[in-house]
Formats: sequence, structure tokens, C-alpha cells
Amino acid sequence: MSDIKFDKIALIGIGLIGSSLARVIREKNLAGHISIATRSEKTLYEARELVLGDSYTVNNAEAVKDADLVIISVPVGGSGAVARDIAHSLKSGAIVTDVGSTKASVIAQMQPELPDYVHFIPGHPIAGTEFSGPRAGFSELFTNRWCILTPIPGTDKKALEQLNAFWTTCGSKIDQMDPAHHDLVLAMVSHLPHIIAYNILGTANDLEKITNSQVIVYSASGFRDFTRLAASDPAMWRDVCLHNRDAILEMLGRFSEDLASLQRAIRWKDGNALFELFTRTRAIRHDIIEVGKEVNTSDFGRQTVINEKKDTPDPKHGKYKR
Amino acid sequence: MSDIKFDKIALIGIGLIGSSLARVIREKNLAGHISIATRSEKTLYEARELVLGDSYTVNNAEAVKDADLVIISVPVGGSGAVARDIAHSLKSGAIVTDVGSTKASVIAQMQPELPDYVHFIPGHPIAGTEFSGPRAGFSELFTNRWCILTPIPGTDKKALEQLNAFWTTCGSKIDQMDPAHHDLVLAMVSHLPHIIAYNILGTANDLEKITNSQVIVYSASGFRDFTRLAASDPAMWRDVCLHNRDAILEMLGRFSEDLASLQRAIRWKDGNALFELFTRTRAIRHDIIEVGKEVNTSDFGRQTVINEKKDTPDPKHGKYKR
Repeated sequence: MSDIKFDKIALIGIGLIGSSLARVIREKNLAGHISIATRSEKTLYEARELVLGDSYTVNNAEAVKDADLVIISVPVGGSGAVARDIAHSLKSGAIVTDVGSTKASVIAQMQPELPDYVHFIPGHPIAGTEFSGPRAGFSELFTNRWCILTPIPGTDKKALEQLNAFWTTCGSKIDQMDPAHHDLVLAMVSHLPHIIAYNILGTANDLEKITNSQVIVYSASGFRDFTRLAASDPAMWRDVCLHNRDAILEMLGRFSEDLASLQRAIRWKDGNALFELFTRTRAIRHDIIEVGKEVNTSDFGRQTVINEKKDTPDPKHGKYKR
Repeated sequence: MSDIKFDKIALIGIGLIGSSLARVIREKNLAGHISIATRSEKTLYEARELVLGDSYTVNNAEAVKDADLVIISVPVGGSGAVARDIAHSLKSGAIVTDVGSTKASVIAQMQPELPDYVHFIPGHPIAGTEFSGPRAGFSELFTNRWCILTPIPGTDKKALEQLNAFWTTCGSKIDQMDPAHHDLVLAMVSHLPHIIAYNILGTANDLEKITNSQVIVYSASGFRDFTRLAASDPAMWRDVCLHNRDAILEMLGRFSEDLASLQRAIRWKDGNALFELFTRTRAIRHDIIEVGKEVNTSDFGRQTVINEKKDTPDPKHGKYKR
């Protein structure tokens, strides 16, 4: 089926992403052997029950022995510790990658720990659901989703090609980006929305005059759209906040500034300003539907065959002007 | 089919809500005659093309003549003008209702204009999509959705029962609320989420270092969940902001306060505070799934048969404590 196959792939972390990888690796026959390591005995037991791999251990060093590809799928705050665990057990020439939502911090944590004779190529598959744990994974998670690789200077071309081929076979579309730019883009499109969603649920939860049951019952009127994001894995998102702090603070600052201005327009009944903003944002939504990332049926595009051509970033596609 | 039937129903405004009403009224045989009025010749032409009613006019007064039930579905800022238009043409004993997202303002605008011999019962079906106009409507829009009626003191019992029966036949579940409390609840569950969604799209749109195409391409990572709300009708939402100003400013104030505190936790790397908030909000999402308002398949529950019993507000369902 596929041109790419590794003798042994080690998966460190077997949550939503790790277990989805295990499933797609098996399905596409991408490895002769899948070794799985995770910190928690309970999670490891679940992975074994689900027959996600060929060997199981709580010892990261043991898992990576003889592995040609090592994929680290842990909350980004744990990247440094994992790198220290595995550093002296890695095979020469092995590819080491991760799936973390922040890249500069992961590089800063891992690069100093890893030996020169392995190929460290940071990555980030833009895929996920609000569920977590080994049971939450599914082999199609990466289908038609972007995977951003953020190679560091001096990255081996062949290793990069192999990792590219791996993710492509998993169903992903590949993009390459500078780590710092990745962190800025993701702070806007992913981290800020999650933080906002968590925050609005907290605000609703604290209201004295409105019960949670009223919030829940009437959530169809808008609130519900936020709840999916706010159900995401708390440990993962704590780590994202701590490890992409500067970019997130930058985006939060802009968001709050804009919100203060919008609030002022409401207070001073500036209907024109409100109408103008509400019209401008509608056009962006239109474009998201256009590129096929979203469809009218509210299935978030998952069931939809995405038009690959249209879905590719178009450099001519500029910014809307105020 | 249904026990309730009006000789003539007048629909003032034939957008998403008005045209959905026209369709369900026809489908359930709820009226002998449907008269449709809208300000815009173009929209009226569309309504006629779609054969949504039996008579069509741009004259609101003409539309309501001899009508037993008048339903006003215009942006809330237009309620007062419509009331003035129709006041002297209303039949004695007619029920006049609306579908506006704010209730205190609609009552303040309409009540002084309407004659004593009609039954004015404000209402708000919690139903909608991000689309607008007569073509956007569909007869199932109200199925299993809540419709909140906010009767004013002295409301005729029989008229209230009739309006209840009307909405029930349209597929809605009915709740009754004090207008001020309605406005507070909706400010939280609907108005604030829409404002936040509009705002974040504006913030993204203004970034200098990230192109719109990058925001759009990577929107799957969280941003996309906000875009549906931000695509809603700008005129409707301008009016909501202006006409539920106090409750919205109250909720915006709370939200911003909480966000500032969350931002501070990020700046000062308070991982515990972040983890605590992100865990607490996950529980609310769990409850929303529990009551059947949301399902895992991301179809927003629309295809799902809702468990009516579970979906009813449960007074025992208290608030989560911090």
C-alpha cells in the first residue's frame, strides 16, 4: 500500500493523538513493530487492552530502543523530560518528532538533550477532538488535516522527506513553517479560541442569577458552539498556555483591546460601528466555507471530501481591509 | 392534524424566522390564510417566488387586517415602528406576538403603541442558523427548540394558551419567563457568545503578521467553532446589542474581568489556576451532552431525537462551585 515503512516506531504517549497514530500506523502497515510507552500504568493497560501496539512499557528509554521513528505525543510541558529519558537509548539515525501544539518551547526543551546522531524534526498535526485518552483515538483523525513541520536549521533532507511521507500516508497535508511563526499562527487560530471558550464557560458558571441548568438548556442559542473547545484536555491546555505564553499574551492583548472598543460601541450606541464589524466578520466565514474547511451541515467538514486544490493556502488571498 | 387553526395569520418580516414560520404554518395547516409583509420589495418578491403565503404586501397595516395572529419577525430595533404601522388596523381580540431576541426593549417599544383590544404576548423562539433571508428558512427550524414566552401582567389566559398551542404545533417546547430575566439569560447564553465570536474574527482579521488565508487554512484547530456565530445577520445583531445593552454590558464586564484574571495566570505561569479552570469548564460541557443539547457527532443535536424529559430544566441542577 504505502512506500514508507519503518522497522520500528515508538510512540511516547498514547492519548488521543498517540492512539490515533497507533491505529493508522497499523492500518497502513507503516511499521514492523509498534512500541508504546506512557507514564501511567492505567493508560498503558488501556492501550494493551485495545491492542494498539506490539510492546508496552512505562519506560520511555526502553520503548525507543532500535526505533527508527519516535513520536512524542505528551503535553508540551513534558517534552524536556521525555527527551532526557530517551536521549541515551536512541538509535543512530533515528527520526525523533513530536505532535505538540507549541513549537519554540518544545525545541528549546528537547534539542539540547538529544544526541547529534538522531534527526529531531518538530511537528504539529492540526487534528484533534475534545476527547482524550487511548479510547478516543481513531485512524482517520489525520485524514485531510494539515500537519505542520517546523524543521530546525541543518535538518537532514532525507529524514525530512521520510517524515513527510509518513504523515502523508497517515492522510495529512503537509505544511512547513518557522517555529516562531507557527506559534504565532496557532496562538491566534487555536490557543486564543480555546482560552476564550474556557473563559466564557467559567463566566457563565459563576453567575448568581442564572443557574447552570438555564445556561445548558438555552445553550443552543450560541453558547453551545464554545463548549466543544472548553471540553478539551485540561493538562494539555495548561501546558499550551504556559509554553506559548508570549504569543498568547500578544493575541489576548489584541483581543481584549478590540473587545473594549466593541463594548464602548455598545455603551455609546454606535450602531454603525457594530454593523460594520458584524458585516466584515461575515465575509471571513464565507471564505472559510469557500475553502472547504467548514460546511453548512455543521459537521465541521469531517465527513466532507475536501477539495485539496482549493484548500491550499493561496498567497494572493490577502487581508480584508477595514 | 392539529387542534389549533387561525383563520388568518399575518407575518411581518419574512427572513429566516418569518419564512420558517410560513413553511411550518402551511405544513401543519395552522392558518386559513397567510399574509406576508416585508419592507423590501426584493424580499417580498423572493417570498412570492417561494410561495410562502397567500397574500403579499409591503404595507404592514394591510397585512394585519382581519388577522387573528400577527407574528413580527424583524430586527428588534424595528419593533416600535411596526407596532405604529399596524396599531389601527388590528382586529379586536387578535394575538400580536414577536420573535425578538430581546424582550424588555420590544415590550417598551410596542406596548404603548398597541390598542387595548389586542393580546400582545412577546415571545422568543430559541432557534436560528447563521443564514438569513426567506430562502434560509425551513419548516423544521423550531422542532425540539425552546420558545420562551414573556407575557406581561394581565395577559389573557386563553390567548396565552392559543399561542402556546401554536408554538407547540410548530414543534417547540415552551418556557415562560419574566422579560428582564429572559434578557439576562440570553445576554449570557446567546448575545455574549455572538459578540465574542464577532470580536475574535475581527482581531484575526487585523493581524499584520498572519494572513487571512493562514487563519482560514488552520481554522480547524479551534477558530472555526467561532465563525458560525460570527456569520449571523449583522442588522439583527446590531439591534440586539443596542436593545439589550445593560444586560450585555453586565455580561461583557464579567467576561473581561475573568479574562484579565486568566491572562494574569498565564503571565505569571500559574499552572494550577489554569488547570483548575480548564477542568471545571469540562464538566459543564459534559452536562450539555447529558441533557441532549449536544451530541458527539457535532451536528449540534439537530438530527438527534432529544429526550424531552431530560431536556426540561431541572431545578435541582445547581451551580458548580469553584
